[in-house]
Amino acid sequence: MTSFTVDLNADFGEGFGAYAFGQDETLLPYVTSVNIACGWHAGDPHTMREAVARSIAAGVQIGAHPGLPDRLGFGRREMAISPQEAYDYTLYQVGALQAFVHAAGGLLAHVKPHGALYHMANNSIDIAAAIARAVHSLDRRLLLYGQSGSLLLTAGRAQGLRVVSETFADRTYQPDGTLTPRSKPNALLDDTESAIWQAKRMVCNSAAMTADGGETSVVADTICLHGDGPHAAHWAKAIREALEAANIRIQPPTF
Amino acid sequence: MTSFTVDLNADFGEGFGAYAFGQDETLLPYVTSVNIACGWHAGDPHTMREAVARSIAAGVQIGAHPGLPDRLGFGRREMAISPQEAYDYTLYQVGALQAFVHAAGGLLAHVKPHGALYHMANNSIDIAAAIARAVHSLDRRLLLYGQSGSLLLTAGRAQGLRVVSETFADRTYQPDGTLTPRSKPNALLDDTESAIWQAKRMVCNSAAMTADGGETSVVADTICLHGDGPHAAHWAKAIREALEAANIRIQPPTF
Amino acid sequence: MTSFTVDLNADFGEGFGAYAFGQDETLLPYVTSVNIACGWHAGDPHTMREAVARSIAAGVQIGAHPGLPDRLGFGRREMAISPQEAYDYTLYQVGALQAFVHAAGGLLAHVKPHGALYHMANNSIDIAAAIARAVHSLDRRLLLYGQSGSLLLTAGRAQGLRVVSETFADRTYQPDGTLTPRSKPNALLDDTESAIWQAKRMVCNSAAMTADGGETSVVADTICLHGDGPHAAHWAKAIREALEAANIRIQPPTF
Amino acid sequence: MTSFTVDLNADFGEGFGAYAFGQDETLLPYVTSVNIACGWHAGDPHTMREAVARSIAAGVQIGAHPGLPDRLGFGRREMAISPQEAYDYTLYQVGALQAFVHAAGGLLAHVKPHGALYHMANNSIDIAAAIARAVHSLDRRLLLYGQSGSLLLTAGRAQGLRVVSETFADRTYQPDGTLTPRSKPNALLDDTESAIWQAKRMVCNSAAMTADGGETSVVADTICLHGDGPHAAHWAKAIREALEAANIRIQPPTF
Repeated sequence: MTSFTVDLNADFGEGFGAYAFGQDETLLPYVTSVNIACGWHAGDPHTMREAVARSIAAGVQIGAHPGLPDRLGFGRREMAISPQEAYDYTLYQVGALQAFVHAAGGLLAHVKPHGALYHMANNSIDIAAAIARAVHSLDRRLLLYGQSGSLLLTAGRAQGLRVVSETFADRTYQPDGTLTPRSKPNALLDDTESAIWQAKRMVCNSAAMTADGGETSVVADTICLHGDGPHAAHWAKAIREALEAANIRIQPPTF
Repeated sequence: MTSFTVDLNADFGEGFGAYAFGQDETLLPYVTSVNIACGWHAGDPHTMREAVARSIAAGVQIGAHPGLPDRLGFGRREMAISPQEAYDYTLYQVGALQAFVHAAGGLLAHVKPHGALYHMANNSIDIAAAIARAVHSLDRRLLLYGQSGSLLLTAGRAQGLRVVSETFADRTYQPDGTLTPRSKPNALLDDTESAIWQAKRMVCNSAAMTADGGETSVVADTICLHGDGPHAAHWAKAIREALEAANIRIQPPTF
Repeated sequence: MTSFTVDLNADFGEGFGAYAFGQDETLLPYVTSVNIACGWHAGDPHTMREAVARSIAAGVQIGAHPGLPDRLGFGRREMAISPQEAYDYTLYQVGALQAFVHAAGGLLAHVKPHGALYHMANNSIDIAAAIARAVHSLDRRLLLYGQSGSLLLTAGRAQGLRVVSETFADRTYQPDGTLTPRSKPNALLDDTESAIWQAKRMVCNSAAMTADGGETSVVADTICLHGDGPHAAHWAKAIREALEAANIRIQPPTF
Repeated sequence: MTSFTVDLNADFGEGFGAYAFGQDETLLPYVTSVNIACGWHAGDPHTMREAVARSIAAGVQIGAHPGLPDRLGFGRREMAISPQEAYDYTLYQVGALQAFVHAAGGLLAHVKPHGALYHMANNSIDIAAAIARAVHSLDRRLLLYGQSGSLLLTAGRAQGLRVVSETFADRTYQPDGTLTPRSKPNALLDDTESAIWQAKRMVCNSAAMTADGGETSVVADTICLHGDGPHAAHWAKAIREALEAANIRIQPPTF
């Protein structure tokens, strides 16, 4: 009998100063790892300390979620940064978060770039390699989360890092294994049943539905659960319970 | 025969983006430790990486120089932050710099708060204790630099940190061991000979000249050399050579 | 028969990027003037444009709400800025907002400093005079909102500006006409009935309740309605209706 | 006898806080208009006030120089902003500068986007149109500076603005009238004689040298003089004197 496992991750600690964001508290029971914002696109030293404390209390694995220097755009707008800048920005942010994790007696387990930086690392091997090099230069035991099939995973492996392949349960994929752009038809799976079906197929069959109803190959070491929609917690609960009901073990990647 | 030693330190890596600042290169040969800006009041990930590399190449001991979140004011304006904020801001910045030091194969040796944060830590035991706690929570072996006679040294010792007492060769002191405010007469020693005399007395006699020509007690584990005046390098060279000529050993504090 | 009038104002447009804040939409029907954040302590060009459009659509009078350069602290922490800096920061922010108001075909009517800048202007005549000078240098017809009895009103009058004296319905006052600090007993009036009583007395009798149940003099040209508590809209509605029921006319200050 | 005129412009007020930048003072005698940074990619309220005062004292025409929200990158890195964001960012920054100009008793004459925003406006009609719309919405009499042959000039004209076509004396052009990219051979004219020759041909013959020694058409209403190289002032002086010696009148565009 084959047994399957998957990690469920969510972005975390995305408030800033007087501003709250997302539904950290309600999502926390359903995930096994979190990506904590590091004070650039979102987060600040206060939210980082609190997010680390909550994560340790909940027993979830902690990752750093570095982003572009664009707080106004929440790190979602691509910027023409150089690979060296990608290296420097990643190292700075991951180091800052690591300090809070160490001060709290925890261990930093992974790094997952945020937003536009994540997407740039999917498509540019130079940006991807710079991020991988930054992670490796800080601690070669750190895991690197990247999108299934992305250049970030390629770069991470080339750097000697252990990589974690990420998929999205609420999205369809293109035949080449990349996400269907949101601008195209059927990019989103907005009913819970389809998302559950997608999640299970990804974990158990390494396959994902395409926009036209076909299938393509993906690797689902972890599934990202979105934290900022109105139904985030309900959705997370439903997916987690469905995966567990299918005898899939929900656990963080080995670190 | 008694032998005296002292550390000479300077602020370092204070540029930002397209902006240069100070005279890092010319000052480096004369100091034994540097305080590198951490990207808040000054500095950015690029300047931090470069400053770390230059410091390691020059063999000087590296410290973090965290400041207030006030880039516009270069961290020189007091802000009504809480002790918890002082803790969070210190931990964030020191962690970020530490990442660059570790990535370069070096060791972070000390922390010295910058500007208004340094002054606030002289006078508020709560702010001082929060900074000491942040340093200790990251790595209890780190040294804490603070002004001779300040509450920051008191708080550092109470926290169990090894502290390094700092004096200024170009300033006179008040009878209580604090600096004469710049707004008062004779606060500055602007000729090189007076500064050299002051430096030697501080190191060998634990005494400093007061504004009215008297003397008070100070502890000079380290002397701060300013990097941003027009004569910074000339001044640093003169003080270093005068101290060496007086058989004072110039070396960084034991770490 | 004497007739009384008062303005009701609220802070507005305090979101930032992906972050929402306050309850602009629900509060808008009850106020006659708004203070729009100008992109420093809160707000950004997008929120400013939207807040201006909504204000014009609702027919409320528009003011600028400049704050300290402290987005992380929402402009609530005092900073040791110079009067010249207070002038520069005010002029910059008010000019930026004015551009959006003019582009939308509206008129900027007033300026009200935010948070710590407001409080600093209560107590420092130099800061107050600098703000008044900035407002005057941009457009001498602009109204200046300041706390009843504050140095900001004094400075505004000395500069030749028309000033608008502001009170708070949910606060008690000290015998000298200043607000009871939040740290003291009975500083807040948290039941609606007391606040309504306070509001009516302030408008009709130029008197306000003190913390010990006595009375002091205030001038209530405008009453500030808070927008960020859970009951903000309910509270605003209740106060407005009670004032109208008492035949007090609710209208913005003449501009 | 035909008479030729041209404006000479330079970027201005690009310091920030404790950081100086460029050679404003030495360049000022040779230009007839300046583009003042508005506090985003460079500049701050203090530098803006000072730059305005110096410009008025020198009798040069004042323009706003808005840039991207990227101080770390000095506004030189392209960002994926939307046209609406380009509108909002332009209006905000131009409004802020206009306040300082009005407070000083001057008149704002033009707007010239900076760095990556300028380049984006060369190539995207949507970004260009948004900038033109922002300028027009603030004051339809404002001039819009844009690169010779760019979509920004097209958009400005379509909006009903008077446009000012800008060329660079130290650069060669491609056959289509665009600048030779710096990455290509012969993109730069680094000897003063070639630049003078280029400047005169551009003004008197509406022609510019190409990288391979040919010619293309340009319109030189204004020539940009760079302020940040080591020979900036010498270069500016040489070009101005050569143009005057050729009986070309140096004056700002009619406003």
